[in-house]
Amino acid sequence: MDASVYPVPSVAAVRIGDEIHALAAEIYPICRSITGAGVRETLRLLGRHIDLEQHAVPTGTRVFDWRIPREWTIRDAFIRSADGRRVLDFKASNLHVVNYSMPIRRYISTVDLKRHVFTLPDQPDLIPYRTSYYEPDWGFCMSQRALDAMTDDTYEICIDSELADGHLTYGEYVHAGETEREFLLTAHICHPSLANDNCSGLALLTLLARNLVARRTRHTYRFLFAPGTIGSLAWLAANEERVPLVDHGLVVSCVGDAGGPTYKQSRRGNALIDRAMAHLVSHLPPNGKAIPFSPYGYDERQFCSPGFDMPVGLLQNSAFGTFPEYHTSADDLDFIRPEHLERSYRLIMDAIEIVETDRRPVNLLPKGEPQLGRRGLYSKLGGSGPGAAMPMLWVLNLSDGAHSLLDMAERSGLHYRLILDAADVLEAEGLLSSGE
Amino acid sequence: MDASVYPVPSVAAVRIGDEIHALAAEIYPICRSITGAGVRETLRLLGRHIDLEQHAVPTGTRVFDWRIPREWTIRDAFIRSADGRRVLDFKASNLHVVNYSMPIRRYISTVDLKRHVFTLPDQPDLIPYRTSYYEPDWGFCMSQRALDAMTDDTYEICIDSELADGHLTYGEYVHAGETEREFLLTAHICHPSLANDNCSGLALLTLLARNLVARRTRHTYRFLFAPGTIGSLAWLAANEERVPLVDHGLVVSCVGDAGGPTYKQSRRGNALIDRAMAHLVSHLPPNGKAIPFSPYGYDERQFCSPGFDMPVGLLQNSAFGTFPEYHTSADDLDFIRPEHLERSYRLIMDAIEIVETDRRPVNLLPKGEPQLGRRGLYSKLGGSGPGAAMPMLWVLNLSDGAHSLLDMAERSGLHYRLILDAADVLEAEGLLSSGE
Amino acid sequence: MDASVYPVPSVAAVRIGDEIHALAAEIYPICRSITGAGVRETLRLLGRHIDLEQHAVPTGTRVFDWRIPREWTIRDAFIRSADGRRVLDFKASNLHVVNYSMPIRRYISTVDLKRHVFTLPDQPDLIPYRTSYYEPDWGFCMSQRALDAMTDDTYEICIDSELADGHLTYGEYVHAGETEREFLLTAHICHPSLANDNCSGLALLTLLARNLVARRTRHTYRFLFAPGTIGSLAWLAANEERVPLVDHGLVVSCVGDAGGPTYKQSRRGNALIDRAMAHLVSHLPPNGKAIPFSPYGYDERQFCSPGFDMPVGLLQNSAFGTFPEYHTSADDLDFIRPEHLERSYRLIMDAIEIVETDRRPVNLLPKGEPQLGRRGLYSKLGGSGPGAAMPMLWVLNLSDGAHSLLDMAERSGLHYRLILDAADVLEAEGLLSSGE
Repeated sequence: MDASVYPVPSVAAVRIGDEIHALAAEIYPICRSITGAGVRETLRLLGRHIDLEQHAVPTGTRVFDWRIPREWTIRDAFIRSADGRRVLDFKASNLHVVNYSMPIRRYISTVDLKRHVFTLPDQPDLIPYRTSYYEPDWGFCMSQRALDAMTDDTYEICIDSELADGHLTYGEYVHAGETEREFLLTAHICHPSLANDNCSGLALLTLLARNLVARRTRHTYRFLFAPGTIGSLAWLAANEERVPLVDHGLVVSCVGDAGGPTYKQSRRGNALIDRAMAHLVSHLPPNGKAIPFSPYGYDERQFCSPGFDMPVGLLQNSAFGTFPEYHTSADDLDFIRPEHLERSYRLIMDAIEIVETDRRPVNLLPKGEPQLGRRGLYSKLGGSGPGAAMPMLWVLNLSDGAHSLLDMAERSGLHYRLILDAADVLEAEGLLSSGE
Repeated sequence: MDASVYPVPSVAAVRIGDEIHALAAEIYPICRSITGAGVRETLRLLGRHIDLEQHAVPTGTRVFDWRIPREWTIRDAFIRSADGRRVLDFKASNLHVVNYSMPIRRYISTVDLKRHVFTLPDQPDLIPYRTSYYEPDWGFCMSQRALDAMTDDTYEICIDSELADGHLTYGEYVHAGETEREFLLTAHICHPSLANDNCSGLALLTLLARNLVARRTRHTYRFLFAPGTIGSLAWLAANEERVPLVDHGLVVSCVGDAGGPTYKQSRRGNALIDRAMAHLVSHLPPNGKAIPFSPYGYDERQFCSPGFDMPVGLLQNSAFGTFPEYHTSADDLDFIRPEHLERSYRLIMDAIEIVETDRRPVNLLPKGEPQLGRRGLYSKLGGSGPGAAMPMLWVLNLSDGAHSLLDMAERSGLHYRLILDAADVLEAEGLLSSGE
Repeated sequence: MDASVYPVPSVAAVRIGDEIHALAAEIYPICRSITGAGVRETLRLLGRHIDLEQHAVPTGTRVFDWRIPREWTIRDAFIRSADGRRVLDFKASNLHVVNYSMPIRRYISTVDLKRHVFTLPDQPDLIPYRTSYYEPDWGFCMSQRALDAMTDDTYEICIDSELADGHLTYGEYVHAGETEREFLLTAHICHPSLANDNCSGLALLTLLARNLVARRTRHTYRFLFAPGTIGSLAWLAANEERVPLVDHGLVVSCVGDAGGPTYKQSRRGNALIDRAMAHLVSHLPPNGKAIPFSPYGYDERQFCSPGFDMPVGLLQNSAFGTFPEYHTSADDLDFIRPEHLERSYRLIMDAIEIVETDRRPVNLLPKGEPQLGRRGLYSKLGGSGPGAAMPMLWVLNLSDGAHSLLDMAERSGLHYRLILDAADVLEAEGLLSSGE
């Protein structure tokens, strides 16, 4: 990490990481799903910070090849032994129930029950996260150790759930900019008590949106908190005319752990957001990296389907599926840290800075170098190198109207912020026009 | 090697390797050259399997910058010591005579004889393979040990050969397809008893041609068995109007040893056959690789000359010149193995599959992903990865009419066969049109 | 180093290295600056070998954003202790005075003096080289050890210099070719007693220019010896109409040390000179390499400013700033060696050969290979490889009118000289037209 670009966090800076963590902690206990009260309650909590609009799409509504399913309500679930002890209790962890399980209550032989129980034998203390949204079924998730301890022949099981006509809900917040051109920032809201995936993304984007309120921007910023797949499809179906307005987009998830950052490119691979994020993460060694698009992941799958092909990438710290805590009960509030959340927050703010400020300036004295020393912009002592003038030399050299500031950052290997600052100084000196 | 794509050979599959080896063994003893009875006899034996047409080009015929040479006949050759013992005998190995040697019979001092003897001092037990097609000369090839054992002062030498007007012969077999667009498959037939170079290629292509008989194909498949250089030039001179019809081509040689596979690109470097073979060999670690074109090698030199610039590459296992057995008596029937021949056979069959099936399908539900689960194409349990659906996700995502199946295989890193199977399933489900 | 291309230097070849070193030694003692008598004296010594024209630009002349400064004269300088001993003496090393120091003579406390003294604490025996061209100031440079030995409280200091209206001087020599298209070769002349930087470049280019006299060339060769930055700007200001005529250019500096060679590309990165030099240095392992353009360095900064964007790169051995002797008194005549100077000389001569001879020949027998053996151009014995014919095979294969000789050298990996020789032989044989 380049200390001159990413200084040691100040007290103020640390605060945003703490704030994000606190908000993530607030929504962490809620049992979310692709529909239901958990999503609405989460949106209500996020809505304390921004003016969030809730959209409700009725059960049965067609969204492209899909149909909004019945709404799922879950009240309680348990496995109870003959002695009345709950050997599994939904109240202890909402991961214990396969998400979208149908209601069931009966006595069942342990043999039959095990056909509906999911564990992680290689991580015997952890509860896996499983779902069955579109196939009517029921099941329990538990630690292998808990399962091994179930020595009775029969248990009483209960899933006090309900599937009924209702709505799919998603939340939307728009920060209006000077133009209609949009930057879409979205996080999935369907996962229950998993902190990194995706309380981290929901909390981060909410507070980033709040902090953007006071800022005048060229782009319009749209924040979308929708259930995975069906939620983004519902938004797309309702907003097809907006798709061509989206110039940049990020799906944000798993942004609180210590890994990465990992930027997954959009299907296009060379959109401005792809280049900006690849640039930014490349300045965060040793683990910062950009990886190519693939059609499995989060909602970039839908945004990047061939009928939309939007410039929407995915920002994560560790890539989903690559960390052992992924989709388990170990993805808890200890797994995400304020300092990692802060770094992710700053990365997105930096990406916003790039799309807001990128331009193709024009050197007004393009023949030879202007005399920077006379203007106090160059070391007076010759013979010992360019010192801090290097970003200015790059900007002057490449300001031919064909190179954008991001082009200059990429070619020079210097952080965009250094290039931007140099361009601003040179403009102020009258050496550069701002270009377009 | 990806077990799901290249399963352990079944009994039936092993058979083709054995068949190829047996046919290679059948033609191995024949003393071939660029003209003469050996070529005709070889074509006769190959012709037991396919309806091979023999073409005879008379001595003196101009083929571009060359002229068909006189036909060479070799009956016997020896070096005999004073005690009547043959210290070198053509009947023991047809490599013993420099191919195309002029007739000679006389007593010669050992000193003078040695000027006409070729050995491999670094491989003292092996006989080298040498030729002198276009420069009238004579010579013997022998092991260094045999030469070292020649302690007499004088020997009787005999090369009972003949150079006389006759013909150059090549064989051709055509599998007619639905279109005139051709796939040219060719192996040089001029090397004498060298098993890998090129009994392996001759036998493999013959049996592949035989196995293609029952198959309907879009392309027309032309099999050419011609002497190196002058033979392919003779074919080109007689078939100039066919050159533009050849969309794909492979020179096949040295396909029975344990190395490689090595695909040498055509001069174009990015022809479909280049991409298909590079893709296929890249899925055969650890040694599978594509190497760039260079103008030295086998008959790709002629097909890729600038006046033709045909999309014809070279398939080998170990690259010629890189294995110690190359052009020596150690390139014998033990050096080639049925399992290696079979792998080469399958590689070419896979290349044929690619050129026959490659297309640009169109996703008929391009907005978002179609609901694969509803169609039984996706794991019902959520939360644990895409499983076997990955190839389908890639095909759906890239089926925009601009990407071919091979493009998809290249971009995804998945074997073409997985992509092809996925496209077939999706077409059957009505989710994809076949495109062009 | 490929022995067949760069043979062991002959006696004649070694001579040029010695000659260059001797000329560098002759100009080494002179105290040069961006103006003044030292530059004129250096040009006079170089002018013994070529018909060098001196251009004088008056103080105050505008050159783009700059103005020609007053001329600097330096006669003497010292720091004297109370006992009358010179603890620093300009006559011992002209590096001792900050170049362009204003005149001063007085007694000064050691404390105050030290604010004007530059040392290299990490290289305590060396004197650094420092300048203050455009900021009126004065200072001394000395070894850390010498400074540490200054234990008196007060010293007498003297800089017997003068800043007065005068001229900036640069030298120019033109070797007229058949066309007006130019190859610009330039070396900065402003550094005082630094052997590698840049007595080496000045001496090398002078003798190269002399050796070019007898040679007919297609290009016109312009040699420019000008002070860094302001000198090249002065030339550009006076020769703007020549800029579009310059097809190739090299800034030459630091060409006598044992490192590299290092070729820094022009801003374009793919100009013919960039490709030629990258090719040539790649054949000089282990340290030969091309590096990308950056806007800090020598006068390529001005030639490659966006208003000119000339195809001018920088040839060095070790890259400036990367060797410990850089800009210190250790950059002396022992640091540069005849054999390194010779290699640099040959590199530039090879680059000249490329731009003079590069062309797109056309194979007159493009269908198949011509029969090289019949023409005595191919080994008569078959079976043992292409031998020396490989460059000819490449040239024949790629002579389609679309590939230049340099293209062929790049694609084949063979040295340009081998490709050129092969093309010449094939042309002489009537197999190739020279193309354009």
